Amino acid sequence: MAKPYSALTREEAKQEYSAVKAQFDALAAKNLKLDMSRGKPGKEQLDLTSDILTVLSDKDQCRADNMDVRNYGELAGLPSAKALFADLLGCKPEECFIGGNASLTLMYDLIAKAYTHGLLHSEKPWCKLNTVKFLCPAPGYDRHFKITESFGAELITIPMTPTGPNMDLVEKYVTDPAVKGMWCVPKYSNPDGIIYSEETIDRIASLRPAAPDFTLMWDNAYCVHEFAADFKPFRDMLTVCREHGNADMVYEFASTSKITFPGAGISVMATSEKNLAYLKKLLAIQTISYDKVNQLRHVLYLKDKAHTLELMKKHAAILAPKFRVVLDMLETEIAPRGLAEWQKPVGGYFVSVNTNEGLAKRTLELCKQAGVVMTAAGATFPYGVEPADRNIRIAPSLPPVEELKAAMEIFCLSLRLAALEKMIG
Amino acid sequence: MAKPYSALTREEAKQEYSAVKAQFDALAAKNLKLDMSRGKPGKEQLDLTSDILTVLSDKDQCRADNMDVRNYGELAGLPSAKALFADLLGCKPEECFIGGNASLTLMYDLIAKAYTHGLLHSEKPWCKLNTVKFLCPAPGYDRHFKITESFGAELITIPMTPTGPNMDLVEKYVTDPAVKGMWCVPKYSNPDGIIYSEETIDRIASLRPAAPDFTLMWDNAYCVHEFAADFKPFRDMLTVCREHGNADMVYEFASTSKITFPGAGISVMATSEKNLAYLKKLLAIQTISYDKVNQLRHVLYLKDKAHTLELMKKHAAILAPKFRVVLDMLETEIAPRGLAEWQKPVGGYFVSVNTNEGLAKRTLELCKQAGVVMTAAGATFPYGVEPADRNIRIAPSLPPVEELKAAMEIFCLSLRLAALEKMIG
Repeated sequence: MAKPYSALTREEAKQEYSAVKAQFDALAAKNLKLDMSRGKPGKEQLDLTSDILTVLSDKDQCRADNMDVRNYGELAGLPSAKALFADLLGCKPEECFIGGNASLTLMYDLIAKAYTHGLLHSEKPWCKLNTVKFLCPAPGYDRHFKITESFGAELITIPMTPTGPNMDLVEKYVTDPAVKGMWCVPKYSNPDGIIYSEETIDRIASLRPAAPDFTLMWDNAYCVHEFAADFKPFRDMLTVCREHGNADMVYEFASTSKITFPGAGISVMATSEKNLAYLKKLLAIQTISYDKVNQLRHVLYLKDKAHTLELMKKHAAILAPKFRVVLDMLETEIAPRGLAEWQKPVGGYFVSVNTNEGLAKRTLELCKQAGVVMTAAGATFPYGVEPADRNIRIAPSLPPVEELKAAMEIFCLSLRLAALEKMIG
Repeated sequence: MAKPYSALTREEAKQEYSAVKAQFDALAAKNLKLDMSRGKPGKEQLDLTSDILTVLSDKDQCRADNMDVRNYGELAGLPSAKALFADLLGCKPEECFIGGNASLTLMYDLIAKAYTHGLLHSEKPWCKLNTVKFLCPAPGYDRHFKITESFGAELITIPMTPTGPNMDLVEKYVTDPAVKGMWCVPKYSNPDGIIYSEETIDRIASLRPAAPDFTLMWDNAYCVHEFAADFKPFRDMLTVCREHGNADMVYEFASTSKITFPGAGISVMATSEKNLAYLKKLLAIQTISYDKVNQLRHVLYLKDKAHTLELMKKHAAILAPKFRVVLDMLETEIAPRGLAEWQKPVGGYFVSVNTNEGLAKRTLELCKQAGVVMTAAGATFPYGVEPADRNIRIAPSLPPVEELKAAMEIFCLSLRLAALEKMIG
């Protein structure tokens, strides 16, 4: 068993550095090109759902839901697609608005409309306010933070805990009327893979924000995405918020991006019927409807929640060995040396590694030198900057297992080198 | 041959009214439900392109353009889809950004970004300006006008002429720095079906607007949409603007909505590479990419311009008889009575009827009473209001020919009744 680095003498550290450097150089010389930067499903997963290409193959099928799905119309999407997402999320079909291939776009468009037109309970459009602040539990999803950043909001970091965002802080911040909302990935959070606890969910749903248009961005991206466990039921946040008298506070998002095809799925925004009635007036200016043919394809292919969960077990069978490689190598190579901490997620798309302070950037630099691309250090924090320089998001889904092993070998050597450089520097 | 109504005595008008009213009541009693409100393709057209449902049916086809089209990525779209649109429009592939199923959304998003972030040559975001004005050639497309209206722009009506917008007025207005752009449908304008003349195009391309970020919204919606003529070549506006020193002024839009499926096609925004480089930074916050599987489906199905034009001839064969019904009935029922004027388009999706002053609203009310829904009167003008109350947009594409005949019969009787009511009222 390897010794904790903190227990090494300076001489031992120098010897260890030489040994690790030699191994690292040998791997770097292979000129590998490995990508662990994004939660992209791998080829095997894409092939898994090939039948969706042909499930809608005849013109007569296109007459569905009492309409011709090929033609213009039906802004909020096919009733059958709403029913599918309502089944998956536990909300009501009439609370669903079906979008295009990216829930990210629905999120962006919601924030954009808050800025240009205001939301249902807004006193004025956010672009007319001097200051808009947004709560960002971190580590979190860089694309979320970028949306609010791009509109000029002030991003406030809320530390993540194993039960979700630090709620004492959240409750304190929402007394400021300039705080207009919060980003959340409540199930298998990106990147930690944490499931918000019951208590956290209740505390969020019962917030009493000073802003009447406080906007809870509830990105349930991994709602059925267990890879090493049975499906874990999760409370419908629309219901929870309604029960706490906050019916119009929450906007939930989900998509089939990691169920069928990442670039060609369908998405949903679920929110109160009052919010939807308001938003549909604005959305009707932007589009006549999203792609209903693709919505029908998904309805025919996924059928319902039970059938979707069967498919997710097949995804899990592909993903589980990849996560095992990551977690096993961290366990054998990093844990005994005391260089980092991490959650052990059973769902989602990431392993989030928190190195000892000040090692993340240098570790990823070294990875890059050896041909392994990962999400930039700091990306999981507002403005792409983590003062403690600790968090590294590992995305194991894309590479085949053999490549992943090579990439993780490089990652572990890089982290050890970064630590040793500091010790002997 | 019927007499012009202007030549009727009061007594003759009363008799005519009774006769027309009886015919109208008989038709109204049938409780028809006919829709001529929107430029929706009919079922026969939708069935025409059924093969696009199966053209992409195997997983191995999804490896195209050096990528897996099913996965995330490639913000501006598939290179092969860019090449297809460049072929159709005459611009360069690298000037194309491929969108989702609605060019309307690309237009909305461009204007939205002008408001929230500003465009390449903007001094500041438009939401920070006291006044933004937009030129609206009218009659025009209601959804265009609504986009700029929804952001609070002041809409300025520019009368249409048989050669395009009244350019003397346009040239006058653009000397005002608050005038930030103009909506155009240059080929088979919506609704008149007018093709902008060479001179108009040159005058537009050589405008010297006071606003450095003047935005020419060039909606080439009907670029290959002849229904009663061979394909008419049309100059690429990006090239024309570049030649006149206005490379960054124009944004061109098109889609396959009326080539394949109206609700499930692909769209394009073509603009200078400099504009695209700027916009891609903003668009990357909103999406990772639009649906590339559907882009590939369209590339495989449409192939190139020559093959697309063959398909358009089949659409024309379905549309031509419908337009003939409309134009023939106007010719026999309305022309001799001197109640309206209209263009005789050979492409596009509409016949635009200009009644004698003050008859449009009442005509459409009567149509509605008899079960015929048409685009609301005034809709083709800014704010949905046409002071002269003359313009009616007829959309003959959706109903089968027999229904269309019934609908046009009701329309002609309604217009005659409206005129007679005024004479004897």
